[in-house]
Amino acid sequence: MTSPQTTAMMAGALISMAAAPSGAQASPERRVRELHLTLPAPVEPFGTYVEAVQAGNLLFLSGMLRTKDRAARFTGRLGAEVGVATARAAARLAVLNVLAVARQQLGSLDKITRVVKLIVSVATLGDVRDQPKVADAASELLQDVFGKDKNPFHCVYGVASLPLGAPVELEVIFEVSP
Amino acid sequence: MTSPQTTAMMAGALISMAAAPSGAQASPERRVRELHLTLPAPVEPFGTYVEAVQAGNLLFLSGMLRTKDRAARFTGRLGAEVGVATARAAARLAVLNVLAVARQQLGSLDKITRVVKLIVSVATLGDVRDQPKVADAASELLQDVFGKDKNPFHCVYGVASLPLGAPVELEVIFEVSP
Amino acid sequence: MTSPQTTAMMAGALISMAAAPSGAQASPERRVRELHLTLPAPVEPFGTYVEAVQAGNLLFLSGMLRTKDRAARFTGRLGAEVGVATARAAARLAVLNVLAVARQQLGSLDKITRVVKLIVSVATLGDVRDQPKVADAASELLQDVFGKDKNPFHCVYGVASLPLGAPVELEVIFEVSP
Repeated sequence: MTSPQTTAMMAGALISMAAAPSGAQASPERRVRELHLTLPAPVEPFGTYVEAVQAGNLLFLSGMLRTKDRAARFTGRLGAEVGVATARAAARLAVLNVLAVARQQLGSLDKITRVVKLIVSVATLGDVRDQPKVADAASELLQDVFGKDKNPFHCVYGVASLPLGAPVELEVIFEVSP
Repeated sequence: MTSPQTTAMMAGALISMAAAPSGAQASPERRVRELHLTLPAPVEPFGTYVEAVQAGNLLFLSGMLRTKDRAARFTGRLGAEVGVATARAAARLAVLNVLAVARQQLGSLDKITRVVKLIVSVATLGDVRDQPKVADAASELLQDVFGKDKNPFHCVYGVASLPLGAPVELEVIFEVSP
Repeated sequence: MTSPQTTAMMAGALISMAAAPSGAQASPERRVRELHLTLPAPVEPFGTYVEAVQAGNLLFLSGMLRTKDRAARFTGRLGAEVGVATARAAARLAVLNVLAVARQQLGSLDKITRVVKLIVSVATLGDVRDQPKVADAASELLQDVFGKDKNPFHCVYGVASLPLGAPVELEVIFEVSP
């Protein structure tokens, strides 16, 4: 008998295996197709800011929540309204937003030469210690797309609250080819 | 009849209109004068750090609170001791500090070619979702000074607490001309 | 009679004095020896990320907790389970981790030409205002090693929770010689 969690882990392993044969040559765009990821329409800024700024060969992205019609797709804090599984789902969807905005900015994800930085902020209530499990959902998906040798440095925080009541916000910097 | 909030919004619109005629040519220093902004004396570091570091053409500023005589001008958390209006006022004042320190570092705000990054951290208690309204007060003022085409990427967080009990802290990176 | 805190402060003063004679010439590696700092084995990533990324002449480090056998050495939040003294000890130990990882990446701390950025996130509960005292423990130790003229810009936050229940997490960027 297999628990849902084990199944999810096996699915994750299969996804990694499916991506593996392409090796170092596989482009991020090809990996997105191989992983059957559907990128959402890129989010539009809600205020007086932009979704991305390029300075030199670094592409800085605005804090990414997973939104739908200007509302958060999931809402709640870890330790209160949401559990690890929901927060992980929110983290994966936030990555899809990151990819959508990066593709829009660059024309193609293949211009990305490295994931430099990943900050994962998880809204928490109380003495929560499962933030890394949530963060892993984001970094695993980034690794599936960009490859093991492109992994970023990362920081994981439990914050008190996030815009729209979202459980997870991502701060990402990509290195891009000129 | 006009509510205080509407009046404030109209005032904001007027400020934007007042700044508009100067167009792309208007310098940040000229805009500061046109907007009748009074910059405070630049804050001094309270500890073993500096208020700004330039690396290449990026100017990184230390976390800016609005302080007066080493105390926070406003104190409290959104959702508890302060409301959106007070937190917005704190955010605007923190921007004035940012401008004061940047001018001191660079000699003139006209050396700033872009607002690259704006992180707005709002101290919150409970299931607060109004952080973006607070952040907008900071980014709108930056836009009034530097212009629409210089808007930064941004991230907005609800944190548990801030130094001095301040309701808002800003983390800013400017791009500067050599 | 001297309180433990005073003794600790005097020890800090003595450490600074001990480092002083070496002046600007003293290398960070020599200072580490002079200060009798014992660097731990560099931490290994717990997930799909790396401990450091170099982009150009900037070395970005992953969020540093002080860990021992994959558990936090200290646990708890300021304002609840831990006081300022414990959080300061955790901050100092996190700096030792930072130094250990930087040395591993660079071969020698002497390649570091500047501490560019220091973000100190302190897990807090309630209306806490002592985060800067905790942050100072980290920046004072960095100053003892790298010298006064290498101080970073910094930001200090009170977060709701941190991975492993740690009281302090550091985010550091170093500038390194080519």
